[in-house]
Amino acid sequence: MMSVTVASAGTHLTLTSGQSVKRFHAIWLRDNASDAETRAAANGQRLISLRDIPADTTIRSADVQGQTLMVTFAPENKEVVYDLGWLDAHAYDVEQSPERGWTPPITETWDSGLMGNVPTGDFEQLSQNDAALRDWLGLVSRFGFGKVVNGPAKDGALFDLVALFGFVRETNYGRHFEVRTEVNPTNLAFTGLGLQAHTDNPYRDPVPTVQVLYCLESSAAGGENMVVDGFAAAQRLRDENEAYFNVLADHCARFEYAGEAGVCLTSRRPMIELAPDGELIGVRLNNRSLAAVTDVPFEKMDTYYAAYRRLGEIIDDTAMEVTFRLNPGEAFIVDNTRVLHARKGYSGEGTRWLQGCYADKDGLRSTYDALCRKPDLEAAE
Amino acid sequence: MMSVTVASAGTHLTLTSGQSVKRFHAIWLRDNASDAETRAAANGQRLISLRDIPADTTIRSADVQGQTLMVTFAPENKEVVYDLGWLDAHAYDVEQSPERGWTPPITETWDSGLMGNVPTGDFEQLSQNDAALRDWLGLVSRFGFGKVVNGPAKDGALFDLVALFGFVRETNYGRHFEVRTEVNPTNLAFTGLGLQAHTDNPYRDPVPTVQVLYCLESSAAGGENMVVDGFAAAQRLRDENEAYFNVLADHCARFEYAGEAGVCLTSRRPMIELAPDGELIGVRLNNRSLAAVTDVPFEKMDTYYAAYRRLGEIIDDTAMEVTFRLNPGEAFIVDNTRVLHARKGYSGEGTRWLQGCYADKDGLRSTYDALCRKPDLEAAE
Repeated sequence: MMSVTVASAGTHLTLTSGQSVKRFHAIWLRDNASDAETRAAANGQRLISLRDIPADTTIRSADVQGQTLMVTFAPENKEVVYDLGWLDAHAYDVEQSPERGWTPPITETWDSGLMGNVPTGDFEQLSQNDAALRDWLGLVSRFGFGKVVNGPAKDGALFDLVALFGFVRETNYGRHFEVRTEVNPTNLAFTGLGLQAHTDNPYRDPVPTVQVLYCLESSAAGGENMVVDGFAAAQRLRDENEAYFNVLADHCARFEYAGEAGVCLTSRRPMIELAPDGELIGVRLNNRSLAAVTDVPFEKMDTYYAAYRRLGEIIDDTAMEVTFRLNPGEAFIVDNTRVLHARKGYSGEGTRWLQGCYADKDGLRSTYDALCRKPDLEAAE
Repeated sequence: MMSVTVASAGTHLTLTSGQSVKRFHAIWLRDNASDAETRAAANGQRLISLRDIPADTTIRSADVQGQTLMVTFAPENKEVVYDLGWLDAHAYDVEQSPERGWTPPITETWDSGLMGNVPTGDFEQLSQNDAALRDWLGLVSRFGFGKVVNGPAKDGALFDLVALFGFVRETNYGRHFEVRTEVNPTNLAFTGLGLQAHTDNPYRDPVPTVQVLYCLESSAAGGENMVVDGFAAAQRLRDENEAYFNVLADHCARFEYAGEAGVCLTSRRPMIELAPDGELIGVRLNNRSLAAVTDVPFEKMDTYYAAYRRLGEIIDDTAMEVTFRLNPGEAFIVDNTRVLHARKGYSGEGTRWLQGCYADKDGLRSTYDALCRKPDLEAAE
């Protein structure tokens, strides 16, 4: 049974239900009202600004009625109804001191133990079945990568894959780029050498948050794709040595790519990026495009390099990696703010041709969340 | 006259020139070597990883020869040559404790005093003259916005403008969106009402970092465009009340837009975004799409709302705003991570038609930096 009390000056109210005691400020409640004058019914956008709400707003009265809370605000003398479930879901009077480098519940970190359970979707199913698409996007959101099988081995098919969840991010590399074995490469991604696991384009701000690699030909031996969970690596670094984690999170690295005419891309961001409250929101790791790091004080540079070295060792640890082979008509996508990818070396016998492109997470998460809210969507088989 | 000394254990060296004393670690120097085995001559990418450099790397000897520094590293017994000018430009043994909310030299904050000097480029000049394009992009980088005049009043001309510096960021709103007066709007941007200054799409992560608005028809009275420097506003807030600045920088807000079928965009980022060392790197302000803020502890929520209110007042202060009118064939672009934009109300008599699109700063800055490095580029007239 929920009960409500209003603080004497009307600055906040307290909702009590058994052991649960949650306070809400008058100004927060008023700003988050969902009545027709405050929020547009059609699209949920707020119709007023904070300047339209008196600074001396207080709670005149509050009353629980069934599953709703009725609040009357002074000086507007405005009555607003809140859903108690909504208030509970948006309560902020809670413990908020997680460890640095925490991740939200939707994120599940992983290591090589995931090898047998690579999140995989069937191209045809994803294209035709909303529930299948929802479930696969859910796995991609959870693990930061996913594989697609049974697609067409067709030039440009990667665009059909992107269209399932979002939009291509065009860059100076084009709407897409070709990855083949070539002589005289201008970029190491086009050689037959193996590549250390990395995130793409850390020299770009904003980085492309999704990368897609789609296989069209693959008769060369080797060349397996490999992914490493950068969040798992960062958390392992933290658990091993908190000072190492902190020095990489608290100082910006610099990245640069100016390898073609008319292009000079630079960025200044940390290798481990945290939200203000310590949420782990991004990793940037790429030995090829790391520029001179100049934003670390002399006294900390030794620690910085030791931490960077250790993080590299963790990423190189085979216990962290998941490996798979892409055959023609197969693809994988990675959350490029989280999951590092690499390619094992291959022999050069035969051909290997992939097409790649960038996209963004906003579209992917939006599509997933919208599918989750869609009524009557059956569970996928 | 530059001289060099090597620390006894070879851990670092010291470059001394008059009053200037700068130390460089052995591992930093080795990692930043630019010899042909370390960096690819063709594109500048690093060919090795930190794992390829011994952890016990020390400086065996160092010698200044003219404008270069010769360093021999142990245990590799590898000799590397550095340009003294490059070392000076990348020295990290310097004072590094700027005030929170600092901005780099390329950023010049502004208020209404800029009104008579809106950074303006001529569409034809920008299209045909690299020096004119460089200078205009330099102004856009400096002030965070710019106007373009004398362009064609032609459907899709905004794409030609974007092509001068970068690439369109396609979103669920399309490659571009139409902004007209309409009845039954699903988005407030399409009504005749004035809008409070805001950044676009804060519910998107990453946000589109550049917005372009291109005018095709404008016979309605009013509807002037207005911009406010969000960095200037944030710094003014800081200078007025540091606790207000800090509470907005140290806690995430939440934004949401789910106003159309299949779309559910959410983000969790602070209104004032800082790099780990306090550099001001972004503002997100949009009363319409602010969701319930739940990442501020109860004890700080009052301060948070007071700070948010004060920041809104600063943004509404006409002393902060620069206003201009767009006529057909004119456009403006804003750095959407910094500059807020708004439209004054207009009467509805006549027509007003703009086309808008998003793009990203990486391309803009890359084009600018590459033009700056281009040899023999004349100064624009």
